Amino acid sequence: MKRTTPLPDTLPEADPQKMEEARDRDKHLTKPAGALGRLEGLVTWLAGWQRRYPPRLQRVEAVVFAGNHGIVEQGVSAYPAEVTAQMLKNFEAGGAAVSQLCRSFDVRLRTYPLSIDQPALDFTKGPSLGKDQFEEAFACGMNAAEEGIDLLCLGEMGIGNTAAAAALAHALYGGRAVAWTGPGTGVAGERLEKKRRVVAAGARLHLSKTTDALDLLRRLGGFELAAIAGAVIGARLRRIPVLLDGFVCSAAAASLEVARSGALDHCQMAHVSAEPGHRLLLRRLGKRPLLDLDMRLGEASGAALAVALVRAAVACHMGMATFDDAGVANRDGG
Amino acid sequence: MKRTTPLPDTLPEADPQKMEEARDRDKHLTKPAGALGRLEGLVTWLAGWQRRYPPRLQRVEAVVFAGNHGIVEQGVSAYPAEVTAQMLKNFEAGGAAVSQLCRSFDVRLRTYPLSIDQPALDFTKGPSLGKDQFEEAFACGMNAAEEGIDLLCLGEMGIGNTAAAAALAHALYGGRAVAWTGPGTGVAGERLEKKRRVVAAGARLHLSKTTDALDLLRRLGGFELAAIAGAVIGARLRRIPVLLDGFVCSAAAASLEVARSGALDHCQMAHVSAEPGHRLLLRRLGKRPLLDLDMRLGEASGAALAVALVRAAVACHMGMATFDDAGVANRDGG
Repeated sequence: MKRTTPLPDTLPEADPQKMEEARDRDKHLTKPAGALGRLEGLVTWLAGWQRRYPPRLQRVEAVVFAGNHGIVEQGVSAYPAEVTAQMLKNFEAGGAAVSQLCRSFDVRLRTYPLSIDQPALDFTKGPSLGKDQFEEAFACGMNAAEEGIDLLCLGEMGIGNTAAAAALAHALYGGRAVAWTGPGTGVAGERLEKKRRVVAAGARLHLSKTTDALDLLRRLGGFELAAIAGAVIGARLRRIPVLLDGFVCSAAAASLEVARSGALDHCQMAHVSAEPGHRLLLRRLGKRPLLDLDMRLGEASGAALAVALVRAAVACHMGMATFDDAGVANRDGG
Repeated sequence: MKRTTPLPDTLPEADPQKMEEARDRDKHLTKPAGALGRLEGLVTWLAGWQRRYPPRLQRVEAVVFAGNHGIVEQGVSAYPAEVTAQMLKNFEAGGAAVSQLCRSFDVRLRTYPLSIDQPALDFTKGPSLGKDQFEEAFACGMNAAEEGIDLLCLGEMGIGNTAAAAALAHALYGGRAVAWTGPGTGVAGERLEKKRRVVAAGARLHLSKTTDALDLLRRLGGFELAAIAGAVIGARLRRIPVLLDGFVCSAAAASLEVARSGALDHCQMAHVSAEPGHRLLLRRLGKRPLLDLDMRLGEASGAALAVALVRAAVACHMGMATFDDAGVANRDGG
């Protein structure tokens, strides 16, 4: 398969030695083996991908890429396109949900506006991005995953982007357009029907030109989805574990997994959103979400919330006493 | 139905006016309606049960009741009974998982050792508690839910208490003993078979004497389960919202719900544990858990972790900008 933007030939893997070091301490902590469930796995995951034991959570960042979508002209969203730029200001001012969640769990929030004034093209009429635009957005994402970040939350803001995500997921995985297309920020009735038709038409048009997953991302995803995919790869190359947010973020990331199996091994799915396509997508990706709270906001909000779990996991792992420390009898009085 | 310890004739209800105030602000926040999912419901729940708007999270406490169980003599646990007392010291010293989780999310931890040196009687031989013992433990729980607490996490520590919880759930809801009996801290094979027989025998013995839910709690639950039930009622009377922890805590609380439908309306189920009976119990209680992370530690660990979600919910509700504040266009450009 020809690729628009070649992925690196090899992607770094987790360090099994560091994972083993995490598992080894875990065995001695004052709890039955496995009793902290997925919190234990989060520590192993961090250590493996950071290639560092103990893992570090000094610099936790949420990066939100924002873009606009020509498809909005077709009336597929409940909000006008101006909201993308307005919400970016709101993020910076601390007034958005993700601002509050980042503050709650000590996450630094950075936003990347991508060609907000010039939306991606309507994907029912042609590719959402030209090749140069795509490579630029992808590179912007790669660079956003800065060296030294210990844990990266990825998210997006873009009126109309659940339509782009649905079209991309539909093109990548097939199935029926209706199953991938949901209410997004809250469309229903005739507007939802319209959105479904647009999703089906977009996938059909671009599948007639290519079956390359990253080219489908370029043709359907628009700026912020391209940047998310770039950030996932940038994080992988710099050994930064990633928390992926909701449906849009996952659809962008899915194009990488389709292009290269294992490309998302360093990513945890922070949550499963109420957008119905997300659950479907997670099943395809074989990823179990950390949270399932009917959230459907994007903005990296689910990812920022999941940082609480990661911080809790590390606090337990590092702060708990061992059986010996605490003078607690281990299993079977041993 | 005759009751051993009468519940109050009426239990206070949530304040619909305060819930409405929460919903009203929510409508104006810079997000699509409903987009924060269950986080929105948590704020409404807090406001309603605290009868206060805005809700307050100044004093968040985790109360862990600890007791021992005569049933342990039958070899149903992987750990010796001394561990209960040893773990209490570990809680105080900050070395337990719940200690770390409480520290992470600003929760004050209090422990109540209940007759640790004299375990509840083996419930296959007679009632686990005498009537006075039961009322004392229940009252201790009621008093532990102190006036002024804004949110109460309930949990337990007691070697052998998943057997007690399984017997109680089996007695309350019927079904098969094997479905209610799980590995607890990690028993398997012949010991798990033994545990199942003990659970079945205990439920059978005491159902032949009573069908009263609180009398079943006395006969099967032992000290810490009685205290948990008391704390749930104490919290209700003082309008304190409650986060219930895992299987043991839920089984104790279930006896209240069976005795009086709606008795747990002020409680959220913090998580569903890996103990298989817990999912079954939540279905019976009609409660959807906030977290599903394969935890199975008890100690209020799941409840303390869920405090992160409640704090996040309140931070978003109070800290987010409204559409007007932020100059963001609302739905459909309105």
